[in-house]
This record gives sequence, C-alpha cells and structure tokens, in this order.
Amino acid sequence: MPGSCFGEFLVVSTFGESHGPAVGVVVDGVPPGLALSEADVQRDLDRRRPGQSAVTTARRESDRAEILSGVFEGLTTGTPVAILVRNEEHRSSDYERFRDAFRPGHADWSYHAKYGIRDWRGGGRSSGRETAARVAAGAIARKILAGHGIAVTGYALEIAGIRAGSFDLAEVERNPVRCVDAAAAGLMERAIAEAKDAGDSVGGVVEVVAEGVPAGLGDPVFDKLEALLAHALMSVGAVRGFEVGAGFAAARMRGSAFNDELAAEGGGARPVTNHAGGVAGGISNGAPLVVRCAIRPPASISRPQRTVNERGEPVEISIGGRHDPCIVPRAVPVLEAMVALVLADRLLAQRSLGRP
Amino acid sequence: MPGSCFGEFLVVSTFGESHGPAVGVVVDGVPPGLALSEADVQRDLDRRRPGQSAVTTARRESDRAEILSGVFEGLTTGTPVAILVRNEEHRSSDYERFRDAFRPGHADWSYHAKYGIRDWRGGGRSSGRETAARVAAGAIARKILAGHGIAVTGYALEIAGIRAGSFDLAEVERNPVRCVDAAAAGLMERAIAEAKDAGDSVGGVVEVVAEGVPAGLGDPVFDKLEALLAHALMSVGAVRGFEVGAGFAAARMRGSAFNDELAAEGGGARPVTNHAGGVAGGISNGAPLVVRCAIRPPASISRPQRTVNERGEPVEISIGGRHDPCIVPRAVPVLEAMVALVLADRLLAQRSLGRP
Amino acid sequence: MPGSCFGEFLVVSTFGESHGPAVGVVVDGVPPGLALSEADVQRDLDRRRPGQSAVTTARRESDRAEILSGVFEGLTTGTPVAILVRNEEHRSSDYERFRDAFRPGHADWSYHAKYGIRDWRGGGRSSGRETAARVAAGAIARKILAGHGIAVTGYALEIAGIRAGSFDLAEVERNPVRCVDAAAAGLMERAIAEAKDAGDSVGGVVEVVAEGVPAGLGDPVFDKLEALLAHALMSVGAVRGFEVGAGFAAARMRGSAFNDELAAEGGGARPVTNHAGGVAGGISNGAPLVVRCAIRPPASISRPQRTVNERGEPVEISIGGRHDPCIVPRAVPVLEAMVALVLADRLLAQRSLGRP
Amino acid sequence: MPGSCFGEFLVVSTFGESHGPAVGVVVDGVPPGLALSEADVQRDLDRRRPGQSAVTTARRESDRAEILSGVFEGLTTGTPVAILVRNEEHRSSDYERFRDAFRPGHADWSYHAKYGIRDWRGGGRSSGRETAARVAAGAIARKILAGHGIAVTGYALEIAGIRAGSFDLAEVERNPVRCVDAAAAGLMERAIAEAKDAGDSVGGVVEVVAEGVPAGLGDPVFDKLEALLAHALMSVGAVRGFEVGAGFAAARMRGSAFNDELAAEGGGARPVTNHAGGVAGGISNGAPLVVRCAIRPPASISRPQRTVNERGEPVEISIGGRHDPCIVPRAVPVLEAMVALVLADRLLAQRSLGRP
Repeated sequence: MPGSCFGEFLVVSTFGESHGPAVGVVVDGVPPGLALSEADVQRDLDRRRPGQSAVTTARRESDRAEILSGVFEGLTTGTPVAILVRNEEHRSSDYERFRDAFRPGHADWSYHAKYGIRDWRGGGRSSGRETAARVAAGAIARKILAGHGIAVTGYALEIAGIRAGSFDLAEVERNPVRCVDAAAAGLMERAIAEAKDAGDSVGGVVEVVAEGVPAGLGDPVFDKLEALLAHALMSVGAVRGFEVGAGFAAARMRGSAFNDELAAEGGGARPVTNHAGGVAGGISNGAPLVVRCAIRPPASISRPQRTVNERGEPVEISIGGRHDPCIVPRAVPVLEAMVALVLADRLLAQRSLGRP
Repeated sequence: MPGSCFGEFLVVSTFGESHGPAVGVVVDGVPPGLALSEADVQRDLDRRRPGQSAVTTARRESDRAEILSGVFEGLTTGTPVAILVRNEEHRSSDYERFRDAFRPGHADWSYHAKYGIRDWRGGGRSSGRETAARVAAGAIARKILAGHGIAVTGYALEIAGIRAGSFDLAEVERNPVRCVDAAAAGLMERAIAEAKDAGDSVGGVVEVVAEGVPAGLGDPVFDKLEALLAHALMSVGAVRGFEVGAGFAAARMRGSAFNDELAAEGGGARPVTNHAGGVAGGISNGAPLVVRCAIRPPASISRPQRTVNERGEPVEISIGGRHDPCIVPRAVPVLEAMVALVLADRLLAQRSLGRP
Repeated sequence: MPGSCFGEFLVVSTFGESHGPAVGVVVDGVPPGLALSEADVQRDLDRRRPGQSAVTTARRESDRAEILSGVFEGLTTGTPVAILVRNEEHRSSDYERFRDAFRPGHADWSYHAKYGIRDWRGGGRSSGRETAARVAAGAIARKILAGHGIAVTGYALEIAGIRAGSFDLAEVERNPVRCVDAAAAGLMERAIAEAKDAGDSVGGVVEVVAEGVPAGLGDPVFDKLEALLAHALMSVGAVRGFEVGAGFAAARMRGSAFNDELAAEGGGARPVTNHAGGVAGGISNGAPLVVRCAIRPPASISRPQRTVNERGEPVEISIGGRHDPCIVPRAVPVLEAMVALVLADRLLAQRSLGRP
Repeated sequence: MPGSCFGEFLVVSTFGESHGPAVGVVVDGVPPGLALSEADVQRDLDRRRPGQSAVTTARRESDRAEILSGVFEGLTTGTPVAILVRNEEHRSSDYERFRDAFRPGHADWSYHAKYGIRDWRGGGRSSGRETAARVAAGAIARKILAGHGIAVTGYALEIAGIRAGSFDLAEVERNPVRCVDAAAAGLMERAIAEAKDAGDSVGGVVEVVAEGVPAGLGDPVFDKLEALLAHALMSVGAVRGFEVGAGFAAARMRGSAFNDELAAEGGGARPVTNHAGGVAGGISNGAPLVVRCAIRPPASISRPQRTVNERGEPVEISIGGRHDPCIVPRAVPVLEAMVALVLADRLLAQRSLGRP
C-alpha cells in the first residue's frame, strides 16, 4: 500500500493535489442502510474550510462535497462511497517563485528526494488540502458511531503557549480558535494576530475525546487502539506528538498513582480514574477515550528563510500569500475525523468476533 | 488483520502467551542472501531478558532463540524466518490468586470485555513477554539496515523524573538503566530501588535515534514515516506518548524557530537544524531520525489496590511476586526493534519505486 | 478490505454504480515520472465501450476519462491517480419493473441477502459497468509494463462452441468478436446474432498472453503468480473458470509429457515447451505467460424466466432492453487490464527485493 | 506481503522448508471460546500424511502437531494459534545430486531467478510439504464452520483420465484415491501403479463442495467469493485450473440454460438449479458451493529429463527416490483446507456488517 489508504473495515482512500482539479475520497466498507446526504458531509467540511474566520487563511474555497456513489435513495448500500470536492481557487502563480526552491519546513525537499519529481504548486499532494478528503470520510464515520452512541469532540487546549484554564465544551464552536475556555480564546486570538503581523506562525495542543466507547475495541499487540490512533493522528502533517490519557505525564507518576482502580458496574468493571485515557492493554476499557496532539506552527511564513533550490544552490525565500498563521482551529475537525475513522473501523472489527 | 501482524514488506507475525509453551515470530520478506544466525538474534534478546540486573525483575529466563526456517547454510533464502523462544520458568501458581480478579492497570478487564475468555496466567497474550518476539524480529531488521549504513540506538533520557544532564552514548550499556548520563544513572537506580521498597513502580522517557537514514523513506498521507513509527512504538504496552523531533515543544515554538532551514549538500539539501526529527511531510529528509516515548510505571505493584472480580464483586489485591519496578531499561531494546522494523520495511518499500 | 481494492504495490480502488453519477478508480503506487494522458486511458476504454459493434449492446456511452490527480505537466508524480468516468445514458426506468424481482443469473438475490438493501437500477455495483474503472487502471499498468518490454494481449479462442482453428494476432482487432481466426470470427458473429434473435445469449473462452515477462515475478506459497491472476480474472463477473498453461488438460497428461524441460539461455535457463504457461512454483520462469478464462453467457435475456420477488412471491420476468448477447468481445480488454494490473504489481514487488 | 500470509479475518501465516527443522503456521483471528485440541488438527494431517497408502510416496513422517499458543484450558482465547510440525525424515543426501541442477517441472529455476539463492533440498519452501501447515490451519477453519452448520468435502472426480461414473460420498475415505466411485477407484489405482512402474506420474480432477453456506458471503468486485477461492486453490502448487459450478462448460451453454431460476424459500429465494455453483455476483446464494481443480501430474519422475545446471550447462537428470506418482489423494485434504479457510474468513467478514 503506497500510503493513501487507511483502515481495514472502513477503508479510506484519498486522492488529489492542492492545485489539481479536485481532492476526493473513496470510503469502502460503509455499513448498508445508513442515511447519508451531502449535507452530512458539508457540515464538517465547513468547519475545516479556509477563510472561516480572521485567524485562518484568507483563501476562500466553498469546498462543496459531491457524493458520486454508494448512496441510493438516501441510504448507503454497502458499496464504496466516493466523494469529490473540486478545487476552486487556483492561484498556482503564487507558487511559481518556489518552482525550484525547497521551502523550509515543507515537504518539498523530501518529496524531491523520494520521487525525483513533484507538483510544486502549493505542496501538491503534501498540502493540508488533502485533509478535506479525510474530513469528508470522517463525517461518514461519525454517523456510524452516532448509531452506537459514540460522540467524538475536539478542541484547542493550548495555542502559542497560552493554556486553557477552564473547561466548557459549549464554548468550543463559539470562538474562532475552538478553545474550551472563552477567556483564553481571546488571548489566543491576539497571540495569533501578533505572530501573523510579525510574519510568523504559532502552534498549540488539541485534545480529542470520544464518549460512549464500549469496552472491547482495539486489538492485542500491534493494533492496540492507541497505536491505531497514534498512526491516524500522526499522519496529519502538522502533528508532532501524540499522547493518550496521562501521556508524557505518566513518565513521572508512580504506579500506585497511575493505575486506574476498578469499580463494579453493570456486571462488569469501570475505571474509577482515567489516567489510561480509556484503553488498557490496547483495548478500550469503557472510560472515555482521551488523546492529545502537539500541533506545530505552520511552515509558510513571510519572514525570509535560507534554503536550497533544485540545482543545489543556496537561496533565500519569503513565503508571502494567504497562509494560516495558526492551523489549530482548522485542525480540530481533521483530528476528530481521524479519531472517528479509527473508532468506526474497530467497531466494525469487533462485530466480526460475534461478541455483543 | 486481527492485530498480531506488522509491516508490509518485512512482515512480522508474533504469537505466544507468557505462560504457554513458547513465544515466537514469523518474519516474511527478509531479503535473500543475508547472513543470519541465532547469535545475531540472541544478542538483542539478552538485552531484553529478565533478571539481567538488580533494577529488573528477578525472574530468570534464558530466552534461547531457535531459528526454524528461512535460513540455509547461514544465509537467508527470501522465505519466512520463524524464530521460537520456549518459555521456561512457568510459575502459573503465582497468578492463581488473580484467576478471576481484574488487576488494575493491566488488560485483564478489557480482554475479558473483548473476548469473554482470557488466559489469566501473567497476562497471557497482553504480557510484556510478547516483546521477546519483537526483539528477535528487530534483530533481523537491524541486519538489513546495517547493510545500508543505518544504525538504531535507544537510551533512557529520564527515569522517575530524573533527567539526563549530559549525553554520552558510550555510557548506555555501561549502566543498568541504559542512560546516556552516568551520574543521572546512579540517581535513577536509587529512585527505582526506593520505589520498589515502597511496593511501587516508576516510569521514564526513552529516546531512539536512527543515524544514516537516507532522504526519501516513508509515504505521503497515511503512511508518513512518523505515523508508522508512532503506530509501532505506541503498540508497545508501556508507551503512553510519542513525539518526533521537537515534539510537544513544537507546540510552543514559532514557525521561524521551528522550521529547519536547508543547506546545500551533495547536489541536494540537508537540514541545518533538526526540529523536525528527520522527517518532512512524512518522508525522511536525510537528518537523523529522532523519536521519544513516554514509558508508564509498571502496573504490577505490591501495594494494595481496589478492583473487581469476574463476578462483579469488589475485591482488594496486592500483586506480589517478581516484577520490574521500572521497565525503562528493558524497554530500550524493544523500542529499538520497533524503530528498526519500520525503517527496514520502508527501505524495502522505497526500493520498489526503482529510485536510487 | 471490503472488496473494492486490489493490489499491493499498484493499488486499485474502484467505485460507482451503473446508474449513479459516475464510475471511477483511484490508482495508488504509480511510479513517478511516467508519461500519462487521458488519451492513454481512452484507447482501452473505447475497446470496452458499449455500442462499439453490432454484436454488443446498442446502448451508447462515450465513456470519457477525466484524470483528477497524480499527473503534473504530463508526468505521474508518484501520488494517487484518480480517473472519473461520468455515466451518461441513464434509463433507470428500464429497470423499474425489476425493482423488487430478483433477476435469475444476476446478483440481485445474493446482494439482497448480504446487504438487505440494493440499488436495483441495472445491477448497481454488480453491473459490468464497474469494469470501465478496471480498464482505466489497466491502461496505467500497461504503460508501466511497456517500459519493461512486457505486452499483454487477449483474444477470443471460442464463442458459442465455435473454436478458432487458426491463430493470427493481427486479426484480433479487425473483427468485432476479437477472434484470432477470421473465418471462425464470421461463424461466431452469426451464432451471436442467432442467439440474440432467439432472446438468448452465448459464452466463450478468452486467452490472454503476456510476452516479455522476466523470470522471477510472483511469490511463494499464497501469492503465486497464477493465484494472483486467478483472483484477478475470477473477479470479473462473467468468468466461471480459469486455467494457466495446459490447465485442465494437464489433469490427463503424464509427468513426462507435462514437465517443461529446460535449455540453457543467457547464463540461465529457458523452458523448451510451455505446458506450465510461464510459471513454476508460482514464479514466472521466463516463458510467455498464458492464461485462459471461461466466459458465461450473459444473464440478461428476453426469454421468460421464473423467479421470486422481495416479498418471496414467485413471478415470471423477461428482461427486455439493450443487452449484450455475448460479452466476450468486450471482456477482452477487461481481462487484459486485470492481467496487466497483476503483472505491474508483481514487477514493483520484485524491485523491492533489490534483485536485477 | 511477501506471500506467506493468507486471509483477512482468519489470517494464516505459514513457514518452513521441506528439509529444515519444521513447518508451521500461525493462525490469527480465531474466534474466542472454540474448543480446540491437537487431535482436531491431527485428524486432517493424517489424511495428508505421506506413506498413508500404496498410491502415495513411501516416505514416512508422523507429522505430529504441537499447539504452541492461543489455546487455554482447551478453548481458544482469540489470540494467535501457532502450530508446529517438526520435520522428521531428512534425507537431504537424496537431493545432493540436484544441488545445482534445475529439476524440470519444479520451481528450482524460477526460485533461482527470483532470489539468486535457494534451499535445494527437496524444493525447500516450494515443496508440497508446506501444505501440512495449511491443513493444520484448515482444521481450525473447519471447526469454526462446523459451528455454523457448514461442511466442506473434497474427492477425486478423475485420475489419469479415468472419470468417476457414480457418486457416493461414503466411498471417498474407503478407497486410497479418495474417489466417489468405488469401481473407478480401482481403475485409478491400477493406472497410478502403471505410471509409477513406467517411471512416470499422473494427474486428475478434484471437486470440493461446501454444504450449508448461507447466502451473503463474499464481497463485490475484487473479493468475489469465487475469486478468493480461485486465489486459495490456485496457490496450491499442483493446481493448474479452477472452475466454479458449470465452469468451462458454461462457455458452451446458452443463457437460458445456464441461468439458475429462483424459487421461494423461507421468505427469500433459492436457486432451482446450480450452474453457478453457489455464487451470484461473487456472493453466495444459498446453494451448495461447488468448485473443481485440475491437478497436474507430479514433477518428480524417474525418467531421464534434459535440463540445465546453475552454471548454465545442459545436463540430464532422473529423479529417483520416493515420490508420489499421483498427488490427487493427498491433495484432497489440502484443497478442503483452502476452501474452509476462505469460507471461515468470509463468515467472520460478514459478521462485521452486523447482518443476521
């Protein structure tokens, strides 16, 4: 598999470059009989869309989803659902200057080393635009999960070093940075604006929580639930770190503090605390699933940077144009999509065991 | 795939429970003509072996590797290499007490929820003993990599909150905690002993570096090199967090500080700094690959803990017996093995492109 | 994987229903730097197109291929190539009568049993229309193979019981049944017309030969070259039998007659005869690859047939409309595409071994 | 995947060479709670064992199965079941003569071309001995199927051109050629003996039937049930052709004769005839599954044959030793195992859809 497929039961295959005709996705394994419309997909695409607020890029793409297959009379049929999103605003000329220069922090050089050829317009396949396809697929996963009482929610915990101090999920979609703390959100907005004015960019931390995950999802050994989630989330270009539950903090805890004791519930058990973040031995334990991602500052900055061109000559470049000074707010629906895809995949996997 | 397979080109399939007859591994895709002997495998197995020092469990298993296939007259033939490690010291009776109690921090409850049946002797399949099979496979990956000038090295950066202050790779195999700082190593040993005396356990942070990785390994989108590494490393039971390069620190850096500028080298480019940890856009960029893992404190502690049994009754248990108070030193060769497996897999993948 | 993906190195993922908006394919793993245009794809699509001659269905679809990704400035970039073929002539109303009746010989009943829901318009996903996507993908495979001197050619050996008596490849594209024997072709055409007039349909046998296949392709045990080819060809709906080399005739030969003796050639060996059809032990031996498929008579016939509807009531149906009385001529490019996809996949696989 | 793995839900990974220490198999995905003992596996291994009758090779191997993992207190636990079969009778010296000569009809030359190295003792990995591992895995699949009322039965339909005239399943295990016709069996035995005396070998045709297969197994497009079966059966070295239902005879039938009309049954439908062999559109239709394989005459014959050695020199060889003059009787349990593995895999797959 050369890298553009993900999943085993709910198999996602994306295609498309940032400045080609379209990006899109084929989702195979969607259970039959699920109500699915373009509006379901559009909702999440709109949350990822460029130009949605002052803290994102000023580029505007309407990102309209067209369902090409797999849905008949409003219901999925069990066959592949293909979704197409045409690219609209091509300003390839913006990139003409970088035609042969490797932009620092981007994949230009590594793609060149790998393939010996690359679509230099806006990063081509390595562009974040590919994540529109993931979000479209994630919308399907979300609907599958909703049918089993599972909800996936993401939000910013930290941006530019500013940490949320309070926690209110109702705030998330009310502020443009998607933070759980309205006051911190204001500071974050300001910090982003400041970085932008300085021709620079900032990063942050996103947390994604899945409520309603039944115990028993995930597989032993190599396909532990947190391993699949780490794979999924680290495959989003801007993510540089991943943790589940207590994460890196666990390295400084003692076993007696870290271990989640168990209480009786419904004939089985329930973790009393949740340092493990909802998984034990790679398999969900019935507690909410909690993961966190470190998001790097975007690579496209207008400050001058030293680099090299395809002829091996040193050059200096400054990346003007309309870029996100902080990708955190738009990353939230992408990370939610990836978590939803993993959970839906494992939910279908678990069914094959014939267990309740 | 139900979870016990890993890799696409170098495919690893492990089997075995901690108290069954054996653990083992089948490695398919090993290139033909590689010199391979049981001694090659034994070297790494010995670094993972229980009872190797005062900071590990007192259990003793000789962990002898037997190669069952795929090697003829000292060379691999291109067919699957199966390696068997018989389990020796079965003290299942140690576990009889936990027959129906779910040990906190272990996978007892989640396996029960998943399968409705479990081998309760020492965790069965969820036991860390399974990693012996990974280390055996990793030894093969290492030999493949060595033939391409790639070396993988792991070490403790932090244990029980004590951080290495100096960095000397030569120290690693000289101290029982595998730390790069001899002075810190002494403090770490003491902290482990202290926790053990208190019936408790401690965690830490391991860093793994791969030198000599050529630019071009890894795949776009879902199979980014760091995504595969995160999958591989988070699949090791004790790992709770993963980061590449600057990792979580990147969330607080500005783009101008995080981006690695490029310098000319050998007709191509070379990152001047290495905040990205050797990957750009999911593809290696020629810089050393640097990843870090958070290791939790071991779950087996002698302090009393509250839990539930299979009948849903609350019980209190205290896990005596011979357990590792800190798994970091023995985790080092396991994490090295996983990194080596991913890199060898992608090296073979890259060959299929027909690129130099 | 739920069935719409094929291949490991050159991964094909098709989507689309016969009466939905489009059929299409995503091909991942296409080597970078390959010249590829829509015209390359169109050539093969035109050979599969309905309405191309008097012996095929009278339906007319122009089947225009649109490349949506993976090609930049006329060359592939190593990223997924998505190709879209819009469906044009929707006459869903033709099928309204079969809305709830299971057509004999079609997949209506088995899909209903599997999914509990189905797109009843023209078979939906089970329609032969899906093979347009395969042919588009096959055109890419063909170009990869051409770069290695491998050519794949298919033709009718038998239709309606009439067997080709002579063998001239130059005849194949000159007659509408794609037969290697011009005289037999005339008889075949007449037999097809006769069956059509009788409201019936006929089958035949197609042979596909690949010239220039180097020794060494294919893998031991489960992925023998003939096993992959059988998988690929038996996945075409109309194919009911598969054989390689002597095939079923081998069952009546003695070992001394069947074994291909070897002669020296170029420092290696060359089979003197080719009863094995180009493979030994599942791995190509340097002789031309020869496979054969039994093609069933099309299921859609205007003669009345007894069946059952979704309410379990017996009904009689007669399938009017414009259907192929014999699918053999249009199956030829589809079977070629499948053989080309398998060979290109294994060619890339073999490269990963690092062998010449 | 380099070829030694098969299946997606029930994943089989075999290893071992004919003259190495052992052959074996790891089966992942076995549902938990299945009663499984070594005796279950031994039963089928004994039917495949060399030396079981006068028509097979005189070699004797006891082929004792040892279960190494995945079974606890007599029940499977959901974790991988590894089964080891030690090789006993090594007469590598028998093969010393062929050390550098490529035996005609064997994989010696093609393996040499692929890998540049090979285990020349008895074919190494390409030896039929590998099928012992498949039979062991198949025994597990059979038990899974039995729990769903599915039974898989194979038998000889034809040997050395002699065709069974009557059909009595009770005869199969009563005669050494496993034929459904006792009278034909006698003629077959004589024909085999005659070929053997002439230093030659003979082939035949095996049919495998699965009763009790529910409608709905298999997947659209590339993973049609017959495609997976063809893959599985053509991966057995001696198989040169595959057909389902009417198979090659379908090529000469008219649609009106070939189509299976449907009758009402249990609220659904039931094919009245079974020309399709139990599948429609790649998905089982509730009729018995019927497939047939052409088995070639064994390659090892004592008659002199011309070939080439590793130095490219022409040589003549005569393969003495104890070889099967006809592999059909021993192939029966192997082909049954492959059919059982595919069906069990698809049964688990279907469960993931959440359909009854």
